[in-house]
Amino acid sequence: MQNWLLPEYIQDMLPVEAWRVEKMRAQVLDLLKKSGYQLVAPPLLEYEESLLIADSADMDLRTFKLVDQLSGRTLALRADITPQVARIDAHLLNRQGVARLCYAGSVLHTIPAGLNRTRELLQIGAELYGHGGIESDLEIQQLMLQALALIGVEQVHLDLGHVGVFRALVQHAQLSKALENELFAALQSKDSTSLQALTEQLDSVLRSALRVLPTLYGSCDEVLARARKSLPDYPEVCAALSDLQTVSVKLHGAVASVGIDLADLRGYHYHSGMVFAAYHAGSHDAIALGGRYDDLGKSFGRARAATGFSMDLRLLYRLLPACAAQPGIRAPYLDDADLACEIATLRAAGEVVVVSLPGSVDYPDESLCNRELVLQGTRWQVVTMVN
Amino acid sequence: MQNWLLPEYIQDMLPVEAWRVEKMRAQVLDLLKKSGYQLVAPPLLEYEESLLIADSADMDLRTFKLVDQLSGRTLALRADITPQVARIDAHLLNRQGVARLCYAGSVLHTIPAGLNRTRELLQIGAELYGHGGIESDLEIQQLMLQALALIGVEQVHLDLGHVGVFRALVQHAQLSKALENELFAALQSKDSTSLQALTEQLDSVLRSALRVLPTLYGSCDEVLARARKSLPDYPEVCAALSDLQTVSVKLHGAVASVGIDLADLRGYHYHSGMVFAAYHAGSHDAIALGGRYDDLGKSFGRARAATGFSMDLRLLYRLLPACAAQPGIRAPYLDDADLACEIATLRAAGEVVVVSLPGSVDYPDESLCNRELVLQGTRWQVVTMVN
Repeated sequence: MQNWLLPEYIQDMLPVEAWRVEKMRAQVLDLLKKSGYQLVAPPLLEYEESLLIADSADMDLRTFKLVDQLSGRTLALRADITPQVARIDAHLLNRQGVARLCYAGSVLHTIPAGLNRTRELLQIGAELYGHGGIESDLEIQQLMLQALALIGVEQVHLDLGHVGVFRALVQHAQLSKALENELFAALQSKDSTSLQALTEQLDSVLRSALRVLPTLYGSCDEVLARARKSLPDYPEVCAALSDLQTVSVKLHGAVASVGIDLADLRGYHYHSGMVFAAYHAGSHDAIALGGRYDDLGKSFGRARAATGFSMDLRLLYRLLPACAAQPGIRAPYLDDADLACEIATLRAAGEVVVVSLPGSVDYPDESLCNRELVLQGTRWQVVTMVN
Repeated sequence: MQNWLLPEYIQDMLPVEAWRVEKMRAQVLDLLKKSGYQLVAPPLLEYEESLLIADSADMDLRTFKLVDQLSGRTLALRADITPQVARIDAHLLNRQGVARLCYAGSVLHTIPAGLNRTRELLQIGAELYGHGGIESDLEIQQLMLQALALIGVEQVHLDLGHVGVFRALVQHAQLSKALENELFAALQSKDSTSLQALTEQLDSVLRSALRVLPTLYGSCDEVLARARKSLPDYPEVCAALSDLQTVSVKLHGAVASVGIDLADLRGYHYHSGMVFAAYHAGSHDAIALGGRYDDLGKSFGRARAATGFSMDLRLLYRLLPACAAQPGIRAPYLDDADLACEIATLRAAGEVVVVSLPGSVDYPDESLCNRELVLQGTRWQVVTMVN
C-alpha cells in the first residue's frame, strides 16, 4: 500500500516553494492593505446553494460536494472565493458606501482547470463594491498589475474585454435564457460550428455581430475600429467600446502590452461588464484575471456594483526564476548565556540560526547552513563553514 | 431561501479578526523560520488511507470524506496536518539527519472539537524529526511558548505529561491491543468506572498503578514524588519521570506556571513519549499542545524520532484583547503626479491610503480613515479629518 501517493493533480509545496509562495502572499496582502482593502477570510466549506450562485454548470461540475452530518444537508468545498466575498459585502458588512475587500486562501476543483493541472489553487484577490464607474475598473486592474510586478512577474500582456457587448446583443435579440446560455457556452469554448447554427435564425445585423465577435481580438486601436464598424451601434455597445478605449490608454505603459479581446469569455462565469486577463509567456492560461460583476450580490439580497481580480499564487510561482532557500548559521548546543544572546541578536537581524542538537550528526549535503557560530577568544563569531 | 447562512460551527473571519490572525501567522512563521524550521504546505485533500494512519476511531469520525471523481477512490479533508508532515519527512525529504519542518493551514472537522465550537481551525505548528533526546522535546516546547508570547498570549500554564508511563504499564501487563485501546479511551475520557472494570483482572501492582494514573496531576515536585511512590519502578517509568523533572526545571521561568499531568491523554492520538499542553484562563481546552510521536512515520515506511507542537490561531485570537483596525488616510481622486507621489511615499512608510472614487459618497460611520491628504499651498499634507 503506497499511502504516500497523493491524488492526481494534488501536490505538496516543499520548503523552497512554500517559503516563496508565503512571501508572495505577504507582499500582495501588504499592497492591498495599504491601498485600503480589508482582509476577509470566508470558510472552506459552505452549503452548496451559498457557493453555486452564478448558475454555472461548469462551476457546479468543478465543485466537490459532501454531506454535513450535523444538518444532513449538502456542503460544497469552495471552488472560487469571489461569491463568498460578495456574500460578506451584501449581507454581513452591508455598507452604503464603497467597500474594498481582499482575501487569500485555498480553493479546490474536482477536475484540473486548463493546462496548469492542479486541483488545489491558492487564490488571492481584491474586490471593490459600490462603485460602477470605470475608475474602479481601473483601480482593480492597476492593483493586479502592481501585484504581479511586486511578485516579480515581468513581461505581462493584458487583454481587456467587455461582457456587456455580448449581453447587449442577446438582449436586443430578445433571446430565451436557454439560447443565451448556449450562445455564451459556444463563445466560451470558441465553438464556431455551434455559433453558426445557433445564430442561423437571427436577423442579419445580430447574426453577423455575434459571428464576428470571435474575431474581435488584437491590438487596441485596430480591434476597436473593427468593432465600431461591424457591431450595431446600440448605446451599451458604444459605451463599452468607449470605456475599453479610455482604460487601454490609461494602462499604456503600466504593462508590457495591452490588447482588446471581445472574443474570449473563458473564466467569466458571473461577469457583467469590463473584464480583463493577464498573460505571460510561461503559461498557456491567464495568470490573473477579473472584471465587473454587478449582479452577483443579488443572490444574497443586495446586488450592487462590483469589480475585482484574482490570481493563483501557485501558478505564479512557476513563472519565477528558481531561487534557493536563505542559508543559515549553525550554532552549537551549549548552556551559555553569551551564545544564547548572540543567537537572539542574529535572529532579530533576520538570520536563520540552526542549533545542532546533542548527538545529532550533521550531513553536509543536507545542511541548510553556510556559516557557523564559533567561540574565538571570549566572543562568539560567525565564520564561513568548512566542510 | 437564506443562502447567506453558514453551516453550524463554521464562521467567516471579518476584517479586524482576519488581519490580526494574518499577522499572528506571519509572526509565528517568522519565528520558526529563524529557528531553522522549513515551511511545507501539504494539500487539503488526500486519499483517506494517507491521512488516517494513527488508527484512531476519533480522528476517523472527525474527518470529512468525499469521492474523487477522477479515481473513484475516497478522499479525506485533513483534520490534522502532523500526519502529512510525517509523510513528507519519511517519504519526500528522506533526510538522514535532523529535519525541522513547520506549516500553517486550515483543517476541517465534521463535528466541533471541545467547547471552542468550530469546525474549521487554522493550524500552525512545527515538527522536529530525527532526534530522540529531551533536547528536542525542550526545543519544541520553548518554541511553542515563544510563539504564544510573540502573539501576545500571556499568563500561560504548561502541563507536561508522558504517554510512555501508560505505554510501559500496558506493555508489562501484556494486555491485548483491544484492551489497551479500551484502557486508553477510558483514561482519555476520564471514565473512572470503565477504568475500574477494565483493571479488575490485573495483578495488584498494575491495577493500582493504572487506577492511580488519573490522580497524578498538579505541581511538578508533588506529582513526581507521588508518582515515584505509587508507580512500579520499571526502567521506562523511571526514565519518563526523570525526563519530566529535567524539562520542568528548564522551563521554569519561561511560562507563568508548569505542572505535571500524567492523567490527561486527551488529544494525544499518536503520541509515544513526552507530551505537553498550554492552558489559559480564556479557554476551557488547551490553547496549544504537542509531544513526541516516534512511530507515526512507520505508516509511510520510515519510523523515526519525532516531536512537534500545534495550535489554532483562530482560538488564540479570541484570547487577545480587542484591537481596532489601523486607521487610514483619505486621498482625493485626481490625475496629479505630486499627489500620486505622496500617496506612494505614505504607503511605503506603512500607511493605509484610501482613494475616494469620483461620485462615491463618504459615510462617516463607515470610514476607515482618521486623516486626509489636503493640498496646502503647493504641497500635499496629511491633516486630521474633520467630520
